[in-house]
Amino acid sequence: MLIKLEEAAALLRERDNILILTHAHPDGDTLGCGFALCRALLKMGKKVRVENSDVIADKFSYMMGGLKMEEFEPELIMSVDVASTSLLGEKLSVYKDKIELAIDHHGSNTRFAEKLLLDDLAGAACEIIYELILALEVDFDERMANCIYTGISTDTGCFRYNNATSTSYRIAAEMIDFGANSSEINRIMFDTKTRTYAKLERLALDSMRMYCGDQCAIIKITREMYEQSGSGENETEGIASLPRQIEGVMVGITLREKEDGTCKASVRTRDPISAADICAQLGGGGHPNAAGCAFDCGIDEAAEQMLRVVENILEF
Amino acid sequence: MLIKLEEAAALLRERDNILILTHAHPDGDTLGCGFALCRALLKMGKKVRVENSDVIADKFSYMMGGLKMEEFEPELIMSVDVASTSLLGEKLSVYKDKIELAIDHHGSNTRFAEKLLLDDLAGAACEIIYELILALEVDFDERMANCIYTGISTDTGCFRYNNATSTSYRIAAEMIDFGANSSEINRIMFDTKTRTYAKLERLALDSMRMYCGDQCAIIKITREMYEQSGSGENETEGIASLPRQIEGVMVGITLREKEDGTCKASVRTRDPISAADICAQLGGGGHPNAAGCAFDCGIDEAAEQMLRVVENILEF
Repeated sequence: MLIKLEEAAALLRERDNILILTHAHPDGDTLGCGFALCRALLKMGKKVRVENSDVIADKFSYMMGGLKMEEFEPELIMSVDVASTSLLGEKLSVYKDKIELAIDHHGSNTRFAEKLLLDDLAGAACEIIYELILALEVDFDERMANCIYTGISTDTGCFRYNNATSTSYRIAAEMIDFGANSSEINRIMFDTKTRTYAKLERLALDSMRMYCGDQCAIIKITREMYEQSGSGENETEGIASLPRQIEGVMVGITLREKEDGTCKASVRTRDPISAADICAQLGGGGHPNAAGCAFDCGIDEAAEQMLRVVENILEF
Repeated sequence: MLIKLEEAAALLRERDNILILTHAHPDGDTLGCGFALCRALLKMGKKVRVENSDVIADKFSYMMGGLKMEEFEPELIMSVDVASTSLLGEKLSVYKDKIELAIDHHGSNTRFAEKLLLDDLAGAACEIIYELILALEVDFDERMANCIYTGISTDTGCFRYNNATSTSYRIAAEMIDFGANSSEINRIMFDTKTRTYAKLERLALDSMRMYCGDQCAIIKITREMYEQSGSGENETEGIASLPRQIEGVMVGITLREKEDGTCKASVRTRDPISAADICAQLGGGGHPNAAGCAFDCGIDEAAEQMLRVVENILEF
């Protein structure tokens, strides 16, 4: 059942011992939601705990500063920024049928919770949490502001993408006025590369080749590159955006070799070319400008299959 | 003489035939100021012209859409985002003693104009132009909004740096509500690389070496790399930020070989290391985290000189 902001606020006022679940491989938005709301509810005198299935990356540690997670029997189990229970991850999957309140900004939310507070126009779920904290009449402090700012900045690619609405900017401004350390957060999130990632990126860029009159660029990340760089598959996300950055490239493809010799493709396009259409022809799917698909074959054969589809779509 | 916003607005209301000067190598902020104000003054029925010493890069062409620059004898000559007359460039240097009004956000403004409207806390000069257009009571439209948004976004590194204040975010939000195409502007400004630049970047990254227990990274851009990539010195600005992005790097140095075999260094540091201090020891200068210096020697000798200074400062 979809509920309104005031109903969610009333529910939180009413209950104590609140367990907040984040999604697996937790990112800045789910963690920002979890820890900002946790801090607000603690200020209201409640017991609260944030749980994740996976380890939280070091770079997010400032969000947890000074918090200790108490043990208690939850009276309310809720999720933040979780679109489906399959995204809770293994550890939290025990809660999948017990979630009373979900707060989310994904239009694709599978309605798994008894009550759902959804705003699919919000650039980040943290924007909804901001409104909720206002409704709960809890004063923001610097740490809460850092959490909310982080969610908005990371989910909008530092205000770069079209999911950043004027509301996203205005909430970010409020958070800065409450002390959010915006430039330091952005430095950590967007301007810092691990040495292993930097090496992998270099090898990946060296592998980039142009096709279709330079309208298509393909990067191949092989197992050998992982070995040479010391990097892993968990670090490849940033690389997928690189081929499309080249001027004139309409279709940027990044192929990643898996351990078993098969591979996966990440496709990024510029309008009017649809990444989802390209991937659909190869059994995958996704968004208009960002999609993916998996192959049963090796990376070179996959590149050829992709190229045939792309040549057709670019009418080349 | 420093003047207030209302005085600048009064001056503009009073005069017709207004010539707006931008700085040389025009960037998003000086052009955003020039064309936003130009459009506002045109709406007030005035004759206005924007002039630059250098060619405007293609990527900024959307700011000029639909404008034609009329010839007239100026009644008011003003500059936007120009800190000193030496920055007007050759073509506009004829006006250097005739500037009645300067609007700027550089604390270092040399007070060359008869009247100076200065706000050195503004992240971009476009923020001052925004306030001025409000004071002139001209309605914003989509094109003016694109100009103002561009200035703020480009001067703050897409809201990444600490010069982006909550006011910067709030004005950006207003501009989005007036139709600024923020995501497309950011794609053009921050997510697009020319093929030649992409090649040069790859060669530059391949040249990166680590020193001082990986706390110092040095990139060397040689003439050969310019030749190999087809890129030029005008495209090296983005590269200077790359070495410092590596986790753990406190000092990132980019050396660029000049045509005569000597070279220049761009230094980027993380707090508490001062780039200005490092460069001062080598006859250069700059800001706390971004500075530069020039060498009379070749690139390898320069690297060694820099390393000696850096080793000393890092106490390595």
